[in-house]
Amino acid sequence: MANLNDPALRSWIDIPPISDFPIQNLPFGVFETEDRGTRLAVAIGDYALDLYAVAQFGFFSDLDLGPKMPKVFRRRTLNQFISLGRPAWRAVRERVSELLRHDNEALRSDEVMRECLVRQSEVRMLRPVKPSNYTDFYSSIEHATNVGMMFRDPANALLPNWRHLPIGYHGRASSIVVSGTNIRRPNGQRKAPDADTPTFGPSQQLDFELEMAFVVGKGSALGDSIPLQYTEDHIFGLVLFNDWSARDIQSWEYVPLGPFLGKSFGSSISPWVVTLDALEPFRVPGPVQEPEPLLYLRQVNAHNFDINLEVGLQPEGSLETVVSRTNFQHMYWSMAQQLTHQSSNGCNLEVGDLYASGTISGPTPDSLGSMLELAWRGTRPVVLPSGEERKFLHDGDTVTMRGYCENNGIRIGFGEVTGTVLPAAIS
Amino acid sequence: MANLNDPALRSWIDIPPISDFPIQNLPFGVFETEDRGTRLAVAIGDYALDLYAVAQFGFFSDLDLGPKMPKVFRRRTLNQFISLGRPAWRAVRERVSELLRHDNEALRSDEVMRECLVRQSEVRMLRPVKPSNYTDFYSSIEHATNVGMMFRDPANALLPNWRHLPIGYHGRASSIVVSGTNIRRPNGQRKAPDADTPTFGPSQQLDFELEMAFVVGKGSALGDSIPLQYTEDHIFGLVLFNDWSARDIQSWEYVPLGPFLGKSFGSSISPWVVTLDALEPFRVPGPVQEPEPLLYLRQVNAHNFDINLEVGLQPEGSLETVVSRTNFQHMYWSMAQQLTHQSSNGCNLEVGDLYASGTISGPTPDSLGSMLELAWRGTRPVVLPSGEERKFLHDGDTVTMRGYCENNGIRIGFGEVTGTVLPAAIS
Repeated sequence: MANLNDPALRSWIDIPPISDFPIQNLPFGVFETEDRGTRLAVAIGDYALDLYAVAQFGFFSDLDLGPKMPKVFRRRTLNQFISLGRPAWRAVRERVSELLRHDNEALRSDEVMRECLVRQSEVRMLRPVKPSNYTDFYSSIEHATNVGMMFRDPANALLPNWRHLPIGYHGRASSIVVSGTNIRRPNGQRKAPDADTPTFGPSQQLDFELEMAFVVGKGSALGDSIPLQYTEDHIFGLVLFNDWSARDIQSWEYVPLGPFLGKSFGSSISPWVVTLDALEPFRVPGPVQEPEPLLYLRQVNAHNFDINLEVGLQPEGSLETVVSRTNFQHMYWSMAQQLTHQSSNGCNLEVGDLYASGTISGPTPDSLGSMLELAWRGTRPVVLPSGEERKFLHDGDTVTMRGYCENNGIRIGFGEVTGTVLPAAIS
Repeated sequence: MANLNDPALRSWIDIPPISDFPIQNLPFGVFETEDRGTRLAVAIGDYALDLYAVAQFGFFSDLDLGPKMPKVFRRRTLNQFISLGRPAWRAVRERVSELLRHDNEALRSDEVMRECLVRQSEVRMLRPVKPSNYTDFYSSIEHATNVGMMFRDPANALLPNWRHLPIGYHGRASSIVVSGTNIRRPNGQRKAPDADTPTFGPSQQLDFELEMAFVVGKGSALGDSIPLQYTEDHIFGLVLFNDWSARDIQSWEYVPLGPFLGKSFGSSISPWVVTLDALEPFRVPGPVQEPEPLLYLRQVNAHNFDINLEVGLQPEGSLETVVSRTNFQHMYWSMAQQLTHQSSNGCNLEVGDLYASGTISGPTPDSLGSMLELAWRGTRPVVLPSGEERKFLHDGDTVTMRGYCENNGIRIGFGEVTGTVLPAAIS
């Protein structure tokens, strides 16, 4: 296969130097416009390349994409395309890379360009994947330690199991929405520590959680376990993930069966799925794991990824402030370990499964991935440049997460996941 | 609408007196045979009525079942049929009731009968619903108290939140299988209380959990909450549910985010979905709730159902022993309260969602819904008639759950959910 990551590759499309989507990236997404309907697409610079249009012009005809071609490119989600398997995604991405290369003229007639390229600003991005199942892990040691210090015992912040397995729980798949969807503040039951009884009403402790999530591209049969060296074969790509959380609802409900309504009112993902292939140059070893994990979780190769992350907070009518900067490489447990653990009991994977990392916090006070930690449970409010303070999110606040990798002058970005807090429904 | 529950109704089909499927029941399922492929069906006595065949003969042509008719009756799951909405299910069930009534000749020619009726013993039943999302509640006060006594504090067995809300957690939808599917003993991480470090291997504490589950028939939009008086409009019907559990894996992994791999290796459901309409005559008030729940969970009408339940345990090469008999009416939190709670934060429902009750334990030692409780965490093994003892399940054990309602001489049954434990895969 050609090296699609080669830093020397250039496109004939004019790509702004700080674009997240150079020719080395080519993430997949789904957009909708009034005249085209829904289309699978690849992001390139400020444009979306309409894969259905490209297929209609015959540019995929010699690829082995099965009998669902070209219909598969006008679905509402990537699921069916992903089901075609890794050889199909790779063939499409490789062909798109060829077509966009500076020395390729194939798409450059006015008519073809008009059909195949749409400005991203002129389309509505859809949720790229219908999540078949959704698991949220808890794999940042800094985050787990911070939460343990705040809610349990500062001297024994990490629970005894934490260093032995990637703790996770099943989340709600139905309420995962695409970036740009506003999030209604949830109503729910909560009890103040000094109150005798709970009350029902709008959450007073609405929070974000900065996470990454990966999309499964290859399922497995019930009863099968996936050895660690093969788990990455099951990963299609990654998105940014905001695991909106209502801390007051969560802390009242979560014993003994875990988070439930404190999470299930909505989670947001970025619209472009960056393939694992595009992230290959950014592979790094993870933190040293001590004690060494049990054999089934032991990894010898580098399975972490160097992805810069940031969170912007923008009060209504005000400017955005970046309140956190961190990196995905801090994760104690890798995606490979998470997926191996998930399947270690024989649980079957399905194409379209989404696995979120858990809040990604770094080691410094400005690298924490939630308001809970940034404002340390409300005890040290975040002061914005306007002088406004935040312990948790207010109605009208917009939270935007961004992520990108960078080396050799090449930036592979994720775009953003953004959402604005709407006032609670009248309960 | 005609009263399909009328005890006076009789069918021209010869129905054994203890059948779960008299003309008053008419549950929906999906079967497969080599020559028919997959068919939606209704159970009647020992037969399955092939709804696609009935549709082909034109018996549904005057009903308003939309453009997906008759294709909808040869799908692999009920999901698309359920999506047609309550008026459609009711119209089909009413028409089937008419066709099967003792004085109706329409189906009784040899040719029509041969096409429309198949012996249940000659078909393979499929998983009736592809679960869109799956939540497991924890709504039996007896079960929650027993578990609290065993694992936490006998003096404060119920956690402070338990009487205020129906505790639940999201479970794994992909590994829900139909009755008859064998269950492989999971491998997993567990740590003995006196051990320093965990080990990985076959669960030593494999258990069943006797539950009921309901299938959602009508979705809701993200952000909407469903008031309690309307939640039953969203319920299509009920199945028996075996929430297989690996107690050793579960007890090591479950803090702080809840059950995960101790559950996700498999859950089993019965193949026939009994409609809420068929259960109407068995509606009963639930236990008195003290303290009175918050307003959004308060119910004035009867929302529990009188369903007799039992669990049979059959060691390999031996006879079955009924190890537990209990009743669904014991549930402290009703299905209506569960679904109202689930949507109270704006979480959207989807057609095909499955909501399980949690283990159904009664007040007496022979009415407990899990081996964990029956053998009281291994301290009082269950002695089978053969003299064999059980603390937890052995390889080769078959667990079969059955359920039925009965009054006025009419028995509305669920059939059974059964599964045999296979040895663990070599890890």
